Amino acid sequence: MYRNKLAERPQFRQILKMSESLGTPHIIIDLEMIRDNYRRMKSLCSYADIYYAVKACPLDEIVRMLDEEGSNFDIASRYELDQVLSLGVDPGKLLYGNTIKKAEDIAYFYEKGVRYFASDCENDVRKIAENAPGSNVYFRVLLPHSDSADWPLSRKFGCSSEMVLNLIALAKELGLNPIGVSFHVGSQQRNLEIWDYALKTTAEIFEKSPVKLGFVDMGGGLPAQYNYPVEDLQTYANTIEKYIDNHFPGEKPRFIMEPGRSLVGDSGVLAATVVETARKDASDEVRWVYIDAGKFNGMVETIDESIKYSAYFPGRDENSPVGPVILAGPTCDSMDIMYENYKMEMPLDLKAGERIYFLAAGAYTASYASVCFNGFPPIGTYIYR
Amino acid sequence: MYRNKLAERPQFRQILKMSESLGTPHIIIDLEMIRDNYRRMKSLCSYADIYYAVKACPLDEIVRMLDEEGSNFDIASRYELDQVLSLGVDPGKLLYGNTIKKAEDIAYFYEKGVRYFASDCENDVRKIAENAPGSNVYFRVLLPHSDSADWPLSRKFGCSSEMVLNLIALAKELGLNPIGVSFHVGSQQRNLEIWDYALKTTAEIFEKSPVKLGFVDMGGGLPAQYNYPVEDLQTYANTIEKYIDNHFPGEKPRFIMEPGRSLVGDSGVLAATVVETARKDASDEVRWVYIDAGKFNGMVETIDESIKYSAYFPGRDENSPVGPVILAGPTCDSMDIMYENYKMEMPLDLKAGERIYFLAAGAYTASYASVCFNGFPPIGTYIYR
Repeated sequence: MYRNKLAERPQFRQILKMSESLGTPHIIIDLEMIRDNYRRMKSLCSYADIYYAVKACPLDEIVRMLDEEGSNFDIASRYELDQVLSLGVDPGKLLYGNTIKKAEDIAYFYEKGVRYFASDCENDVRKIAENAPGSNVYFRVLLPHSDSADWPLSRKFGCSSEMVLNLIALAKELGLNPIGVSFHVGSQQRNLEIWDYALKTTAEIFEKSPVKLGFVDMGGGLPAQYNYPVEDLQTYANTIEKYIDNHFPGEKPRFIMEPGRSLVGDSGVLAATVVETARKDASDEVRWVYIDAGKFNGMVETIDESIKYSAYFPGRDENSPVGPVILAGPTCDSMDIMYENYKMEMPLDLKAGERIYFLAAGAYTASYASVCFNGFPPIGTYIYR
Repeated sequence: MYRNKLAERPQFRQILKMSESLGTPHIIIDLEMIRDNYRRMKSLCSYADIYYAVKACPLDEIVRMLDEEGSNFDIASRYELDQVLSLGVDPGKLLYGNTIKKAEDIAYFYEKGVRYFASDCENDVRKIAENAPGSNVYFRVLLPHSDSADWPLSRKFGCSSEMVLNLIALAKELGLNPIGVSFHVGSQQRNLEIWDYALKTTAEIFEKSPVKLGFVDMGGGLPAQYNYPVEDLQTYANTIEKYIDNHFPGEKPRFIMEPGRSLVGDSGVLAATVVETARKDASDEVRWVYIDAGKFNGMVETIDESIKYSAYFPGRDENSPVGPVILAGPTCDSMDIMYENYKMEMPLDLKAGERIYFLAAGAYTASYASVCFNGFPPIGTYIYR
């Protein structure tokens, strides 16, 4: 059982106390921890500008605080744009990072003052040229499939290097300002060498480009701490810097990063209550543990058992005897099982009514919850400060 | 491309017209078609009482209409209970079919007048005895895994026959009224023989039971029509009746069914707009088609590519040339791909801005949508009448 950084902070006790006064399920986010994460990242990755990926946890308080800290923002939709602008964020700090966008949405971003657009196909470049004339565009290059990310990014985004080069020429021809390249190594990427490959690919495109480029969007991929140890941010920051120096030995382009999970993941705790524990037959060795959060209410990243949270059990110490369980949510849906192949270890005397705290649940949890599946209201999110 | 029953109804043109006046994505439900489905099922399955599984599509209008028609209701949570009671439904028509429930929720159902409870483990039986004294309880028996259901039900619900027998004795001892057995053959079950096995298992429990039983909840499993032909309801109804006669040759227990998908699935159409079509490299044969609905907004049952919808393309006839596509949603999430291994065929000249209508999208769509992932609002549902 790996403890996360939030559980090691003195504030954790207060957060548990705050949680006790709330019904479950819920998520509590330690806002000051996100601030600390941001400052540390800014200092360690000083070679890059930070654009918070709002989708990871779109709470107003987080956006407002990061705005004060000087962060920029990666925006996924016009609705996110409305939210962020309503909080007073300068549109010059935003980029429209979603390669999938309607013509009217591009026009909407342009009208609101956004001038940075990601793209990855000819039709999209033409739509940007028409609806956001003269804007800065950068092109997402497709990396080979990586098995070392917990959420390996598919071929959904990006295109081949050859196509990137064609799109650069097309953008120029259509009066846009083609500025560079973006990539994404995959969310919660554990193999640092993928950045080496991605930066090498980027440098090759820079070299072959018909237009001088000066912008590299390195996307996300920096990890949060789930149920296995991860390298410290310092290691990631230094290694990526080394790759940058290696592949861009001369004049440096502008680098940006779009952290989501690595800024907010560790800062959140998801509180659930045990609804029941059960065996299906007297001879079964593995218990089923049913809780009131689930795949449709906060824990959607357990699809394919990808993200494996650590859990904290109040009132128990390291020596409490534990055993393997199958963990499932409260709905009448057989899909609503979080871990079945992966056997989480839980106290042998765990009982209905007890609380379980899932650690590092700040990213991709609340905003993913279903509106009302089985009637259950979406999990609430609270800020601790 | 299999047309569904809604597309064959004269109302379909009016529904498309209604859809044109609405932004996408959205779902339109043909209420009268659900009424027709209910009446047909009631007539064909006259050997069973019908309990609509509200979770399949929890719209007030559907609950109200089915209540008028005389339907009963299978309730998954206290929130569904509140909704259904607020519409004036008699609590005597309800059962609490979720085996996963908190003690306080059992008490809440009891207080509101519900007297039928499903159960599958000792702790739960004890909670029911304490919080809903004297109530009717029935026990979910676990069936072996079935690969012939589009959503095979896991071991999440139910227990072994031996444990069912023990729970019957325990319930009796605790002052409850153990009335019978429930099973679920798996959602969208295509192999009718599973009902044979399930009814045989049930009859065996009836025979061995220490208490005389008289209630069989046959759950759901009757199909909607997706992209492959399914047997007509008449075939299902007659075959199940034959199995019942075979396994319960003497005095018949009370049989109930909990249809969800088979009542509402075919009646809904999901309207989406093509956001873009793209190839990742000039040499790619398969296009990507991005639409404004997705796995997090209406099409969650495409997880593992389980449910495969048919699609209707306005303005095109049977002879329009088509080709394989990968279908993906609008979010910046690589998981938001509906069909990648299964290659849907779409018109070769499909363009951004065009509409696609996904058929048989009435069940397990709107209520599953995420609250705001990537900022996108949840898909809206509208009633056509």
